[in-house]
Amino acid sequence: MKYGFGIDLGGTTVKIAYFDQEGTMLDKWEIPTVTAGGGVQILPDIAQSVRGYLDTKGIPRKQILGLGIGVPGPVSGKGVVNRCVNLGWGVFNIADSLSSLTGFPVKAGNDANVAALGEFWKGGGQGCENMVFVTLGTGVGGGIVVDGRLLHGSHGSGAEIGHMVLRSQEPERCSCGKHGCVEQYCSATGIVRLAKRHLAASDTPSVLRGMESFVAKDVFDAGKAGDVLALEVLNEFYQLMGEFLGSLCSVVDPEIVVLGGGVSKAGTMLLDGVEPYFHKYVFHAASDVKFALASLGNDAGAYGAFKLALDAFGA
Amino acid sequence: MKYGFGIDLGGTTVKIAYFDQEGTMLDKWEIPTVTAGGGVQILPDIAQSVRGYLDTKGIPRKQILGLGIGVPGPVSGKGVVNRCVNLGWGVFNIADSLSSLTGFPVKAGNDANVAALGEFWKGGGQGCENMVFVTLGTGVGGGIVVDGRLLHGSHGSGAEIGHMVLRSQEPERCSCGKHGCVEQYCSATGIVRLAKRHLAASDTPSVLRGMESFVAKDVFDAGKAGDVLALEVLNEFYQLMGEFLGSLCSVVDPEIVVLGGGVSKAGTMLLDGVEPYFHKYVFHAASDVKFALASLGNDAGAYGAFKLALDAFGA
Repeated sequence: MKYGFGIDLGGTTVKIAYFDQEGTMLDKWEIPTVTAGGGVQILPDIAQSVRGYLDTKGIPRKQILGLGIGVPGPVSGKGVVNRCVNLGWGVFNIADSLSSLTGFPVKAGNDANVAALGEFWKGGGQGCENMVFVTLGTGVGGGIVVDGRLLHGSHGSGAEIGHMVLRSQEPERCSCGKHGCVEQYCSATGIVRLAKRHLAASDTPSVLRGMESFVAKDVFDAGKAGDVLALEVLNEFYQLMGEFLGSLCSVVDPEIVVLGGGVSKAGTMLLDGVEPYFHKYVFHAASDVKFALASLGNDAGAYGAFKLALDAFGA
Repeated sequence: MKYGFGIDLGGTTVKIAYFDQEGTMLDKWEIPTVTAGGGVQILPDIAQSVRGYLDTKGIPRKQILGLGIGVPGPVSGKGVVNRCVNLGWGVFNIADSLSSLTGFPVKAGNDANVAALGEFWKGGGQGCENMVFVTLGTGVGGGIVVDGRLLHGSHGSGAEIGHMVLRSQEPERCSCGKHGCVEQYCSATGIVRLAKRHLAASDTPSVLRGMESFVAKDVFDAGKAGDVLALEVLNEFYQLMGEFLGSLCSVVDPEIVVLGGGVSKAGTMLLDGVEPYFHKYVFHAASDVKFALASLGNDAGAYGAFKLALDAFGA
């Protein structure tokens, strides 16, 4: 039996997990992400933590097949990071650097893509060949698996599905600088934005009016309780999700769409709302798509990162 | 040296080409597509033509690595056709059937996807790893190459990019039954439709008003001659193309977009019109994309079909 590490590198913490080659997570822990000084300490810290773990447990280095790492920014198929603003990083080959520091082979990918691979392997997408993974959180991210392999893209920014254009006439600007991106409507912050627009545009009574501030969960809770305005907001959100996923699945033609991120905690209410609009907008031959919720939570990135290494070095 | 056949099956003719394994097209010819009787004669006709060619030329069967075929309908990665309305076909495994009839291994794909593979291999996309191919003809079709492999999709309808949703509020219906598909605006017929809307909505003088009927080429020709209304129409078309390709490339992150089909005969005028809008709508990290025109014309399907066989059986 061989073993390896799956590493999910975030802006505040690094999640490190130790796996056997079957994909059983045997151990996991976190270390802080030290972004000071252009993030020069991040990879040495990870290498020290991995080496320390092996020494403490008395694990022979020859049992380790390699490391996988998910990074919050674009990463090319060859392991070249193309700037991570959160970490202070520029352009360099993270796979080569971390490999030098640890002595193990390293495979790297974008964090959202890597989380998609985790859900594909051990989560909501198990048993499929083609999958679209969508995280509905503060932003909208995701990953695409084609014939069992991640779509990385030529510049490491494959599956930036949150920046597909939904409403080109949108006056407000997306964080990316464009106008009308999916993320402006379908993220947790996007839902709040839609709700504020509805509140401003009508006098319909709503529990949301009495709140000093509210979040996406409040909109779902109000809708569940029958709040008419909240239901109008959710209906617009479902419509936008249907257009977005209908277009995306007409391109990818997957077996399954897996929804994750904070908004996916709305669960079956979300799936039941989105599916009818999805069928309105997807190309008929690609319409036989299952919808599922992500099941690995915060561990998806570590699973997917290890799977990257397993696919590359496990044979 | 091994050899093989690339077959492009259309609604009226079957194009058959004979290649060496380097991809040199050594011979090509056409036979009629006999769709009568549910299209039962189509595969036997192809088999007879292929066997006849080998006999006439005295080519030993052991020199043949296999056949590839592009089909005008969805084809799964395993070779299952999922209805071709044009041909009268239902659901069956075309790869197995044609293999039985010829005695050679067969690989099949959707015709637009296969043409994309041809352009990727020997045409406008040569030397790339990730490509988006768009045919702007009577409809809008295309194909996507990810890390050198075609995206077939789970139901054989991958890359139905002409049915991404651009304007969900569109009152007219697309041929697919949905509303607001790319094909309703960006095809040759879509451009004429846009022009008719502009003509009806304004009194701006235009040479198009004097024509009893006109086609997309007339709109481009009028625009080139400075016709104000035609330029407005083309500007809207370019904007829609920019949104469409911006969204698509934010998903796929390719190195190159190759444009083919009748509308692509507008050449650099088309590329110069689309590129500024593309950059307005594509995610910044995926914006370093080359645009090129398809270069294989009607032979793209035969090249791609042979490449399918070469990839599957050529090793």
